Amino acid sequence: MWRQLLPVGRDAASGGYRRFAWTGADSDCRSWFEEQARSRRLAYEVDRNGNQWAWLGDPARGDAVVTGSHLDSVPDGGAFDGPLGVVSAFAALDELRHRGVRSARPLGIVNFGDEEGARFGLACVGSRLTAGVLTAEQAHRLTDADGITLPRAMEAAGYDPDAIGADPERLDRIGAFVELHVEQGRALDLSGDRIGIASAIWPHGRWRFDFRGEANHAGTTRLADRRDPMLSYAETVLAARREAELAGAVATFGKIAVEPNGVNAIPSLVRGWLDSRAADQERLDAVVGGVEKAARAHAAAHGVDLGVERESFTPVVEFDHALRDELARILGTGTDLTVPVLGTGAGHDAGILSGRVPTAMLFVRNPTGVSHSPAEYATEDDCVAGVLALADVLEGLART
Amino acid sequence: MWRQLLPVGRDAASGGYRRFAWTGADSDCRSWFEEQARSRRLAYEVDRNGNQWAWLGDPARGDAVVTGSHLDSVPDGGAFDGPLGVVSAFAALDELRHRGVRSARPLGIVNFGDEEGARFGLACVGSRLTAGVLTAEQAHRLTDADGITLPRAMEAAGYDPDAIGADPERLDRIGAFVELHVEQGRALDLSGDRIGIASAIWPHGRWRFDFRGEANHAGTTRLADRRDPMLSYAETVLAARREAELAGAVATFGKIAVEPNGVNAIPSLVRGWLDSRAADQERLDAVVGGVEKAARAHAAAHGVDLGVERESFTPVVEFDHALRDELARILGTGTDLTVPVLGTGAGHDAGILSGRVPTAMLFVRNPTGVSHSPAEYATEDDCVAGVLALADVLEGLART
Repeated sequence: MWRQLLPVGRDAASGGYRRFAWTGADSDCRSWFEEQARSRRLAYEVDRNGNQWAWLGDPARGDAVVTGSHLDSVPDGGAFDGPLGVVSAFAALDELRHRGVRSARPLGIVNFGDEEGARFGLACVGSRLTAGVLTAEQAHRLTDADGITLPRAMEAAGYDPDAIGADPERLDRIGAFVELHVEQGRALDLSGDRIGIASAIWPHGRWRFDFRGEANHAGTTRLADRRDPMLSYAETVLAARREAELAGAVATFGKIAVEPNGVNAIPSLVRGWLDSRAADQERLDAVVGGVEKAARAHAAAHGVDLGVERESFTPVVEFDHALRDELARILGTGTDLTVPVLGTGAGHDAGILSGRVPTAMLFVRNPTGVSHSPAEYATEDDCVAGVLALADVLEGLART
Repeated sequence: MWRQLLPVGRDAASGGYRRFAWTGADSDCRSWFEEQARSRRLAYEVDRNGNQWAWLGDPARGDAVVTGSHLDSVPDGGAFDGPLGVVSAFAALDELRHRGVRSARPLGIVNFGDEEGARFGLACVGSRLTAGVLTAEQAHRLTDADGITLPRAMEAAGYDPDAIGADPERLDRIGAFVELHVEQGRALDLSGDRIGIASAIWPHGRWRFDFRGEANHAGTTRLADRRDPMLSYAETVLAARREAELAGAVATFGKIAVEPNGVNAIPSLVRGWLDSRAADQERLDAVVGGVEKAARAHAAAHGVDLGVERESFTPVVEFDHALRDELARILGTGTDLTVPVLGTGAGHDAGILSGRVPTAMLFVRNPTGVSHSPAEYATEDDCVAGVLALADVLEGLART
């Protein structure tokens, strides 16, 4: 099953995956999902937002237990982020059948569309639409780098963009959603555990720092006469690292735009984006406040003007405590291990759904800790452990 | 005369000039030059490399005195860089006629093509070709951002690209070349002088620093697990400023390219370009060596690989000492001022020609010190002083 999916959308040069929403590679992944559902004689359906579902038992009965993840990828992403959760869902269902488990509740497997937002710039479009936190009007305005709108891209892939929108009836039928995902850090590797349970998704946001100085000739302008915004930017990058270390958080300047961006020109504008996340709001405020304060001081010292704009923000997502404890109980009795509970800095469809449905996440150990890169990895043993843990969870929940 | 040229190629939004080689704006500037030459009954010609010449007296007699500069501009450049030297040349000739000076030597005015290199990425193409330091084969390979080659651009502007190449006979006829230029720094403003004489063009070069780390998720990768090249880059930007201060030189990181350049991705590659110039080779070596040493130390500390490549280098250009002293003598007796002699960090056609012809430069005070920007400036009084100084120089040289 894993082998069939491995070559789809893989770039020969980078070894990374380019499975962008509503492209040919995405379509191949979706065909694979449908085939997996039909070959297991599961009821297959696509909802109004293009998310794929496979059902054992009639979801109309309600209180369904659903698992799954996404099949799309970031540019040059790894093989595990997303697909591991979908492949493990089908494998866990096979395991339940092998164990002869008869579920008292409908069991569902889902592939949410466009989770990574690699094409249209907004993550979790499929789950956001379904949960009603993104409106059809907003989604219709999304455009990719080639100027193709989301509606045109959906049409080209054979879907009806006029049908998209909130789907409360569908969510009301779900009693629990569990997403299995490869860990995107090294917490499990450091603690020596194969599997972890998510406690929360850290609050996170993006801030744009615009440093405006004065364009000038790099060869003839005395240092004392310069208003060079690259210097203030450099000081701010280093301040972000220091503030994140102090708060036990993360802070990253990964994107930059420079004008005029010429070798022999002092820049007029350096625009840098700060991505920061922390375990709680207080720590995140401390990091961003500290970075902005340092940036203002250095900008003033260099005669540079600074504008800071918050471009996006997501508050902390606490996963359902009862479901989390239930998972810990199931996995704690099923094995000899105490399963660690950990926070994560990454967004997920599970985070979107948690506002509407009791939701939990399982993480599988990633020995490199690397994510969104071909170096992302999980051992076969750990993947099998993930499938068995997910099967245990589904079996435990199916009996309640 | 100045007023006619002011609106040509000016961008309404930025107020800056976009007079790129072999474009419509450039062609308008060239028509203006031809008109100025013909209206003064000067012999007008275009050489094999597209440089324009206007002659008083037959250049075939040899030992000509030539002045001039260029009419093209950088993107959003100022009004003075280039055109001031050409306009002042015509005005100085008018002044000589007004004074009734009869020249013993042929007098020439030149407009060198494509000095700024804004379109094809190489500066001083017209003078380089003529001096034989750029071959026709090399020039034929130059391509602009739209993929248009230099030969195609020259053809579109009505010139024959197959004719280009070294022109030693033309240079052999020139006994002295004097280029007047707006100062691109604040040395004259600080010393309180209207006019200065160039001593030398500082040695300068461009170095590319490739910091290679590891792409990773900005939200989930612990600080300790990161190999973030943006941090090493930031440390290096600040080191360049410190080293330049220590050496009394200039150093600038004005251009950057980042991969993948995503807000939520730790970069895999940060590529930064260092432009550095100093009064002599020893100081330049000290700056670049110091920056590279700091970059290597910081890269190693962050687990980042560093490659440093010298992309271009121009050694010091010492202008002809005899001609420089002659100018100082002429201007020192013509006025009550001692005219300061100063170095410059910028390249010029005069720098290219100085390898073949006795060459000198005059600078006109720029109160803002700003260059390659609409804020570039010279007062009308200082421009008139420049014209009179140039007329004095031509008169003095014409008598010898």
